[in-house]
Amino acid sequence: MKRHLLSLVFIFLGCSLFAQGRLIHTGEIPGYVTLKCDFHSHTVFSDGEVWPTFRVREAVQDGLDAIALTDHLEYLPHKKYVKGEDNSAFAIAKNYTERRDLILIRGTEITRKMPPGHLNLLFLPDSITFEDTTFLAVIEKAVNEGAFVQWNHPGWKAQQPDGIARMMDIHHELIEKGWLHGIEIFNDGVFYPGVMEWCIDANLAITGNTDIHGTTAEVLSSSSDSHRAMTLVFARERNERELKEALFLGRTLVWYGDTLAGKIEYAAPFVSSCLKRTGAVYEDSSYNYYRIENLSDIPYYLTDGVNPDAPKSIELQPRAYIVVRIRKEGGQTLAYTVSNVKIGTGERLKIEL
Amino acid sequence: MKRHLLSLVFIFLGCSLFAQGRLIHTGEIPGYVTLKCDFHSHTVFSDGEVWPTFRVREAVQDGLDAIALTDHLEYLPHKKYVKGEDNSAFAIAKNYTERRDLILIRGTEITRKMPPGHLNLLFLPDSITFEDTTFLAVIEKAVNEGAFVQWNHPGWKAQQPDGIARMMDIHHELIEKGWLHGIEIFNDGVFYPGVMEWCIDANLAITGNTDIHGTTAEVLSSSSDSHRAMTLVFARERNERELKEALFLGRTLVWYGDTLAGKIEYAAPFVSSCLKRTGAVYEDSSYNYYRIENLSDIPYYLTDGVNPDAPKSIELQPRAYIVVRIRKEGGQTLAYTVSNVKIGTGERLKIEL
Amino acid sequence: MKRHLLSLVFIFLGCSLFAQGRLIHTGEIPGYVTLKCDFHSHTVFSDGEVWPTFRVREAVQDGLDAIALTDHLEYLPHKKYVKGEDNSAFAIAKNYTERRDLILIRGTEITRKMPPGHLNLLFLPDSITFEDTTFLAVIEKAVNEGAFVQWNHPGWKAQQPDGIARMMDIHHELIEKGWLHGIEIFNDGVFYPGVMEWCIDANLAITGNTDIHGTTAEVLSSSSDSHRAMTLVFARERNERELKEALFLGRTLVWYGDTLAGKIEYAAPFVSSCLKRTGAVYEDSSYNYYRIENLSDIPYYLTDGVNPDAPKSIELQPRAYIVVRIRKEGGQTLAYTVSNVKIGTGERLKIEL
Amino acid sequence: MKRHLLSLVFIFLGCSLFAQGRLIHTGEIPGYVTLKCDFHSHTVFSDGEVWPTFRVREAVQDGLDAIALTDHLEYLPHKKYVKGEDNSAFAIAKNYTERRDLILIRGTEITRKMPPGHLNLLFLPDSITFEDTTFLAVIEKAVNEGAFVQWNHPGWKAQQPDGIARMMDIHHELIEKGWLHGIEIFNDGVFYPGVMEWCIDANLAITGNTDIHGTTAEVLSSSSDSHRAMTLVFARERNERELKEALFLGRTLVWYGDTLAGKIEYAAPFVSSCLKRTGAVYEDSSYNYYRIENLSDIPYYLTDGVNPDAPKSIELQPRAYIVVRIRKEGGQTLAYTVSNVKIGTGERLKIEL
Repeated sequence: MKRHLLSLVFIFLGCSLFAQGRLIHTGEIPGYVTLKCDFHSHTVFSDGEVWPTFRVREAVQDGLDAIALTDHLEYLPHKKYVKGEDNSAFAIAKNYTERRDLILIRGTEITRKMPPGHLNLLFLPDSITFEDTTFLAVIEKAVNEGAFVQWNHPGWKAQQPDGIARMMDIHHELIEKGWLHGIEIFNDGVFYPGVMEWCIDANLAITGNTDIHGTTAEVLSSSSDSHRAMTLVFARERNERELKEALFLGRTLVWYGDTLAGKIEYAAPFVSSCLKRTGAVYEDSSYNYYRIENLSDIPYYLTDGVNPDAPKSIELQPRAYIVVRIRKEGGQTLAYTVSNVKIGTGERLKIEL
Repeated sequence: MKRHLLSLVFIFLGCSLFAQGRLIHTGEIPGYVTLKCDFHSHTVFSDGEVWPTFRVREAVQDGLDAIALTDHLEYLPHKKYVKGEDNSAFAIAKNYTERRDLILIRGTEITRKMPPGHLNLLFLPDSITFEDTTFLAVIEKAVNEGAFVQWNHPGWKAQQPDGIARMMDIHHELIEKGWLHGIEIFNDGVFYPGVMEWCIDANLAITGNTDIHGTTAEVLSSSSDSHRAMTLVFARERNERELKEALFLGRTLVWYGDTLAGKIEYAAPFVSSCLKRTGAVYEDSSYNYYRIENLSDIPYYLTDGVNPDAPKSIELQPRAYIVVRIRKEGGQTLAYTVSNVKIGTGERLKIEL
Repeated sequence: MKRHLLSLVFIFLGCSLFAQGRLIHTGEIPGYVTLKCDFHSHTVFSDGEVWPTFRVREAVQDGLDAIALTDHLEYLPHKKYVKGEDNSAFAIAKNYTERRDLILIRGTEITRKMPPGHLNLLFLPDSITFEDTTFLAVIEKAVNEGAFVQWNHPGWKAQQPDGIARMMDIHHELIEKGWLHGIEIFNDGVFYPGVMEWCIDANLAITGNTDIHGTTAEVLSSSSDSHRAMTLVFARERNERELKEALFLGRTLVWYGDTLAGKIEYAAPFVSSCLKRTGAVYEDSSYNYYRIENLSDIPYYLTDGVNPDAPKSIELQPRAYIVVRIRKEGGQTLAYTVSNVKIGTGERLKIEL
Repeated sequence: MKRHLLSLVFIFLGCSLFAQGRLIHTGEIPGYVTLKCDFHSHTVFSDGEVWPTFRVREAVQDGLDAIALTDHLEYLPHKKYVKGEDNSAFAIAKNYTERRDLILIRGTEITRKMPPGHLNLLFLPDSITFEDTTFLAVIEKAVNEGAFVQWNHPGWKAQQPDGIARMMDIHHELIEKGWLHGIEIFNDGVFYPGVMEWCIDANLAITGNTDIHGTTAEVLSSSSDSHRAMTLVFARERNERELKEALFLGRTLVWYGDTLAGKIEYAAPFVSSCLKRTGAVYEDSSYNYYRIENLSDIPYYLTDGVNPDAPKSIELQPRAYIVVRIRKEGGQTLAYTVSNVKIGTGERLKIEL
């Protein structure tokens, strides 16, 4: 019962090739704009397979507002052929991006054995270089320059054969120093349970990213997903400064496949903004009939309805409505568990329409 | 470069089968809601191939707000097997429809040789029957009961071998008597030039309908269209009374394939509500860059740009945006012909973004 | 990872509307042609929602070779409006069908409480009528006229609230008399475990059908399936006589969603005809590389590979190939369980490529 | 009325990512296998946007049998960052390709102003380098090493502002010397009339290629095409040696969008192998009915039927059939122009079914 978002479209305008961007309707939280972001991607400057300009055009077509180029700092398998400085991918893409109204974030991925594993440094200034490459020295220098530090794929099977994300001493140390600001709960098709709790406890941002090396079109063609995984950031305005501030304050949700994951304080108003219940549109002798609209591009699966006189479950497809009926003699509330919105390990959002 | 609207979706809720309706985003005219309507359809009660309930469910899935069942009054090829009264199809579908929040209009199609050809009587009361079946007697009775009279497919090849719509004496007579209220400019894949001018001159409603006999899914599968043809009616509220009033006042546009057709006074504000130009999002030494968003499910093809320092043409896909650039030294206006919005024979809407 | 078969296509040829039929590539069993059949469908003549001609056109577009119209014998909710004789739906559709090269089977559905439940009588002669409508009298008369008797949806929840198919005395009696020839293992989205064993034991045909009342397009739009459920019959030639003989001999498989179900003697050669392994196409110092092709429109999911030097599992999409590698020092066999081919309750086909 | 080929699919097998290749059914010419080829593509080693391995995986998913990497010899805009030798892209991709059963052709694009414009050298040996870079010296050296020389996009607007392909003295000279072996009749969305006649006169191969710099997925998403443009080569076996021989002998057709183009001696048997007419499947008093099958993934549009008692035109969708009728008293031939098969400027293939 999947619905596919629309495919990417290109057009020529005069002699320039401009990408046509998809307008994805997600929800909103009052007072904020929702920025659709991917904080983890690679280019040929480390082990990715595309040039930085392609990564930008792809992000526009995928409907993103912001993308970080985060080539590995230490892992450079193409170095026999591709010789950039740390800043090269960003420098190549910067002007190209601005002319497409995308926010481009300079980043890099610190690539170490576990522990500490891989961490992204985001919002690096153009000029930064890392001479002292010991792990903590790199982190410290970046943090001093204002970087946002994200722990990537904490249970990555290549580093944790059982696939279970575990906090180790070094991660606790980073948190204590204030040097860790976010953790990926989702990376390249894999969801990491436990991350939600760590982020809630330590007040970190929950993020979800593609870690794309090839193309997102290729990844989507091998799944039934209609959109690339993304971090939704709730910023006061659509610019890099506000995006960065919102990220440091942890105002995020993660959208991957049909699932949303994040803190209840953001999930609750976000989902409420997507779903609209009207007054009764019809009644017969036994029932009142109500129209429920899903205004967003995200499906919602409502289960475990608590009203015995109303449907037990409702599946709301993206941009669709349904009419449900409630027995007249019963209460007229519609309260459900939203089975595809995770707010904790094993916990799902509850809503009343 | 087509984009397909999402496919229809069904779900079971308890023991009832409710259709999930598509929320199509078209434009809006301030002060009105846009009702998506089809004023011409058939069931097994004349020469259609579906039961009235299917026609209703199909309309919900296709995203309509209102549908008229307009079985032929005189042409009843199934009568050996199907014996209804004039009101049967409507009676069967009425309750079924109300439980789905669709507006169901009772109608019938007067089916005569040309002239006068075929005409739909819409908004018939439940009780009406036609004993005197001479053409004018039928029309008069219906009009006296408040019916809206629509002239169908005025250049239908079965009745006009050259396919050219022509007003004949009887049609002029109907207009003079106030007994004709709308004309189909589009019916079942065919657009009829000339109808626009007649409707503007005589202050009639321009309509476009499917005249569906089989299923709309079958028709769409044989074309590259993403939606069924429909009449967009601009009503003060979403109910049958306001729909009827708006139709009598001619507040309509027709959407078929990638094309909109209708009077400029509705086309202009409607299209303006779909397209949004931001302030400059970027500038370099030579250019300012502007973001243009198409918020609707209708594509817009902008051609013949009058600013020599801006793109000559822009193609805006449904729910997509594009960034265009204008030379700084030139004027910053963006004025275009909208090549897929017809406001007269050979005339296209002009807009300034 | 679904792939959708191509959508239906229509075209006008002169003044006639001919449906364009889809050519579905399934597998083949040497000596037979594979006929794609649906032995259970309804029209407005009982409780269906479409006219018989639509049912035929739909079958052609869905790629079928044969369809049975099986309106209920006793359940006629439309009878206030639709008055046919038992043969009317068939009579209306017969010529229409022949001009489209489809095989049309006259049938009816005996519609009783459980036991015995619902049974289809297939291949009824045009002239048959049932005056004595006691259950066994109807069956006997039909059998005497050569009918194939199919027990429908044996665990239908409306008649078996726990959804479990159970043989009752009357079904055993039918089998003993030779008056039951097939059982639906799949009907309208539901698979009935247990049926496989009964059919193997009693030498009955295993069938799977849509029981379609609305349209198959509507059903498919609410699922991720790319094709309607069907019974594959292995006949010596493509005509009604051979189809009937093959059905009586139980030469069938059932294809629904991504799954095949049926007797191993048909499943094994059928699947083998779909999958082709070439000789090694490449080798390096450690591995031989083999190309595996899936020539059919059915996906195959190979799991539990027994060769430790070859892939544990392989997913073969419809009309696609993959290259797999086997360590040179290991055996070069590729033996798998085909997890989407059911040959018994809990049993899956095993193949060696 | 487009039908889309199936989307690309990926799967993981153990720890290796293998691309799943699409099996496209085109036609065949007796005695040959049809190899689906693209003889023009770029990587980051010149001005392309992807790494050589991606280009290979993409070709497999697109259903190709062979691909040439043809980075510019002289135009190296990435050279600040990417420093390969002439052979680097090929060397990187070679093993990766062989493990996927694709034929990888080493090539380069000589990139000069017009005349001579751009020419691809194909089937270069690994070791070749070009020290003397004057145009004719490069061509001569390559030809002496066995290269196939293809003139690319002969009417490219960047070099021929009117878009018209013109042979100039240098091209005549190349032909006289035997140093030109093929010309692109189609490149990156553009068809070049006139090329067909030159190739027929001089006995050159007609080719059609993508000249892809970004990704084919991106290009296809901006069109209604279901497949990438390709050259179909009729080789005695599926290997590089036979492919090369067939190309030198000019045994090719070009497939782009819905169109085939090439020499009649290949087009005629190829199209015949796709279309199958059966004997009469039905007859009534007036008509015989024949089934026409299109076994291929290419649509065929038959027009200008010469039999007045048969349909004037027939549209055969990919892998579909249709039933056509012919009046009994008329001749039973079905002879048409195939409007989407170009065999000369303004000439279309004629066939008799």
